[in-house]
Amino acid sequence: MNLEPGTLEPGTTKALAAWLIAHRLEDVPADVRHEALRAIVNIVGCAIGGSTHPAVDIALRALGPFSGPATAQPLARTERVDPMLASLVNGISSHVHDYDDTTPGNYGHPSSPVASALFAYASANPVNGRDFVHAFILGFEAESRIGNAVYPAHYDAGWHMTGTVGVFGAAVSIGRLIGLSTQQMVWAIGLAATQAAGLREMFGSMGKAFHPGRSAQNGYAAALLAREGFTAGERSLEGPRGFSAVTAAKYDLSKITRGLGENWDLRVNTYKPFPCGIVNHPTIDAAIQIHDEHHPAPEQIAAVRLRVAPLVLDLCNQQNITKGLQGKFSVYHGAAVGLVRGKAGLQEYSDEAVNDSAVRRVRERATAVGDSSITEDQARLEVELTDGRKLTRFVEQSIGNLKRPLTDVQLNAKFRDQAVFALPPAQVDRLIDLCWRIGTVDDVGQLVRAAMPASVPV
Amino acid sequence: MNLEPGTLEPGTTKALAAWLIAHRLEDVPADVRHEALRAIVNIVGCAIGGSTHPAVDIALRALGPFSGPATAQPLARTERVDPMLASLVNGISSHVHDYDDTTPGNYGHPSSPVASALFAYASANPVNGRDFVHAFILGFEAESRIGNAVYPAHYDAGWHMTGTVGVFGAAVSIGRLIGLSTQQMVWAIGLAATQAAGLREMFGSMGKAFHPGRSAQNGYAAALLAREGFTAGERSLEGPRGFSAVTAAKYDLSKITRGLGENWDLRVNTYKPFPCGIVNHPTIDAAIQIHDEHHPAPEQIAAVRLRVAPLVLDLCNQQNITKGLQGKFSVYHGAAVGLVRGKAGLQEYSDEAVNDSAVRRVRERATAVGDSSITEDQARLEVELTDGRKLTRFVEQSIGNLKRPLTDVQLNAKFRDQAVFALPPAQVDRLIDLCWRIGTVDDVGQLVRAAMPASVPV
Repeated sequence: MNLEPGTLEPGTTKALAAWLIAHRLEDVPADVRHEALRAIVNIVGCAIGGSTHPAVDIALRALGPFSGPATAQPLARTERVDPMLASLVNGISSHVHDYDDTTPGNYGHPSSPVASALFAYASANPVNGRDFVHAFILGFEAESRIGNAVYPAHYDAGWHMTGTVGVFGAAVSIGRLIGLSTQQMVWAIGLAATQAAGLREMFGSMGKAFHPGRSAQNGYAAALLAREGFTAGERSLEGPRGFSAVTAAKYDLSKITRGLGENWDLRVNTYKPFPCGIVNHPTIDAAIQIHDEHHPAPEQIAAVRLRVAPLVLDLCNQQNITKGLQGKFSVYHGAAVGLVRGKAGLQEYSDEAVNDSAVRRVRERATAVGDSSITEDQARLEVELTDGRKLTRFVEQSIGNLKRPLTDVQLNAKFRDQAVFALPPAQVDRLIDLCWRIGTVDDVGQLVRAAMPASVPV
Repeated sequence: MNLEPGTLEPGTTKALAAWLIAHRLEDVPADVRHEALRAIVNIVGCAIGGSTHPAVDIALRALGPFSGPATAQPLARTERVDPMLASLVNGISSHVHDYDDTTPGNYGHPSSPVASALFAYASANPVNGRDFVHAFILGFEAESRIGNAVYPAHYDAGWHMTGTVGVFGAAVSIGRLIGLSTQQMVWAIGLAATQAAGLREMFGSMGKAFHPGRSAQNGYAAALLAREGFTAGERSLEGPRGFSAVTAAKYDLSKITRGLGENWDLRVNTYKPFPCGIVNHPTIDAAIQIHDEHHPAPEQIAAVRLRVAPLVLDLCNQQNITKGLQGKFSVYHGAAVGLVRGKAGLQEYSDEAVNDSAVRRVRERATAVGDSSITEDQARLEVELTDGRKLTRFVEQSIGNLKRPLTDVQLNAKFRDQAVFALPPAQVDRLIDLCWRIGTVDDVGQLVRAAMPASVPV
């Protein structure tokens, strides 16, 4: 429904701001709080996994010389920088492998901008875990609801939601932590709205991961400016020249305010089990199930036959590949690593894995057929062994989607699989434990310090 | 014409980048170079005039604690900060009184984002005047052309051009100064595109002046990131999810590249003679002419009769006013200060001027009639004196528009009128001289230092 701006929903911005300021953590249901912990475990793992990516190195090299007093610490990096630059770095690292969470209401990746700003803040300022988790929940909720209001027209136009609505999440969560008044929160939302940016044309470049980083940084700045009295338009969400009207041909402002405090978008957040296009997930899922049940040796595999939704072959039909990045666009590679290694984490999308002779051998024996009776959540896999036996598996709901969410144990495994790129195993285990306990710690800064590469003196 | 993205103009971004990198100052015609000096004189004056505005103080208070090494100097401020924060401050100060230049091709205010980044850079790094003026011309041109390509659909949608296209100007001008390659310039333009932001919903708040400031800062950062190899989408202007397609329902990419190096948008740049809504300008112009010719004493004025375009009364019909800001929306106040003071600069839009008894007396005797035979560039003014005499003036083309541009002498007067808020007269005169000579100085940093308030030790 395309509401007439500013008439049917005259007070969206102010209503949201007032709710954010008045809200109490006690009023968040226990399941939502637990989902917040899951989101935090997931995003910290992603930030560690991405912390060694060249985009992070480049951003620090280019902008580090302009860092303010080095009171903050990006996640899993040894550099100390100012908290706004740390927000940028956290946003890049946590999104750069496209492995962070997704909310099905608008296909944005909601945790990165919010958590990136919050961990940067907490690395430089004392924040107890209770306030941190509460700010995270509120930032996530505001961002996701604003995204829902403008989706799908906003996304279809070419905006990258993770950038455009991420800035609201960061502004709101930092604004709550620094104690803004309702009037100041209205300005913070306005200053976020007027910095909302991020084009899908950046997909395939480092520019994509720049979006949640810059959103985190700009939202943080919006909150600081608002606290000091920098004014902004007060109807930035609903006004005729505000965020919704300007960036979406159709939008529904009621999605921002309806059921606030009752319906929580964290409840429908999803976590990717594999760092590649989601259309490959059911195939990988089926391959891992066959691996785990039968443990076929790679040299025993004579043929791999896939039956998948036609879209899979539109997007991921690459077979003759040599680079890790290409593996993300190869459903054959997904099947191969699932069958050979029983997993498909970041390490299975390295150049090494793509060129691993056993993986390559199985990948080259795979064929695929598009079948319009198979949904994008489904896949059928048949493995023919050299002795003639056939192992088959049909996945009806892919792991990681809302009907088959990752378990807490699987989230831990995903965390571990990423963190080994940057940290020794014992440190990873301590950090995972700390993430689950974040709501009870006295100072969230200790978590950021616990994520620092141990080989470097603190 | 709504071009199919990426088909008719496949190489807009790269073509623009290549032209920017290859261009030589010798190929800029003399009249364009002179127009660049006029733009620089105007924007430096505006920055000084705005340097004492509370929005500048607030931005420095909120973000100053996060400044990097203090190598740079905002115009007409005593604080030293990092060059990116200086860019933000320059952008706010030079736009906050809505007194900067306007390009009639898209109604953006092109100089602020470009000059704000460049003066910040030059305050921290040695730059000779020749390179500075060249970078200014190229940044202005790129920004203005991108604005022309998406105007008017982009503006009508609710975007504030000064923010959205300003970021390109800053990225391009800094990119040229720091010696980017064509590939790097393509990335810088991409990182600018994906930061393009600024909503018209901010009009009437400090958020409006935040736009050129943030554009300057973000464009500066885009150039630095690109230099270090931070990649971006390479078709950010013309791609199907690029800046033009995403932010404008209709656009014409050929306006970006057609006649590059032959047609210069600086030639059609205009300078506001009065810091108020442009629709009031012909009335003020007429009033000043009567003042200068007849010098009527305020107490001799019995009635002031205005005949104006109907739009003037839609926008500026306030008569019973007490605040300087309200004066900007009162055509009666414009007539009154023109008749009483013979000028309408920043000082005539202070609270003091609005409450000045002579000004108020004349304002209260003014009446206005909307007349659809009068264009928005025209006004008819009749002043009836107490002795029955009538003084009349018809303005056919308002001063400041393209047909009656401000002369260099008038630009100097405008500069002086603003600069007295911050600097003593002798310093102002030296600074004006230095602005006109900027193309020949060895180090533009000396100009920034010359604009520093003298009462504070350097």
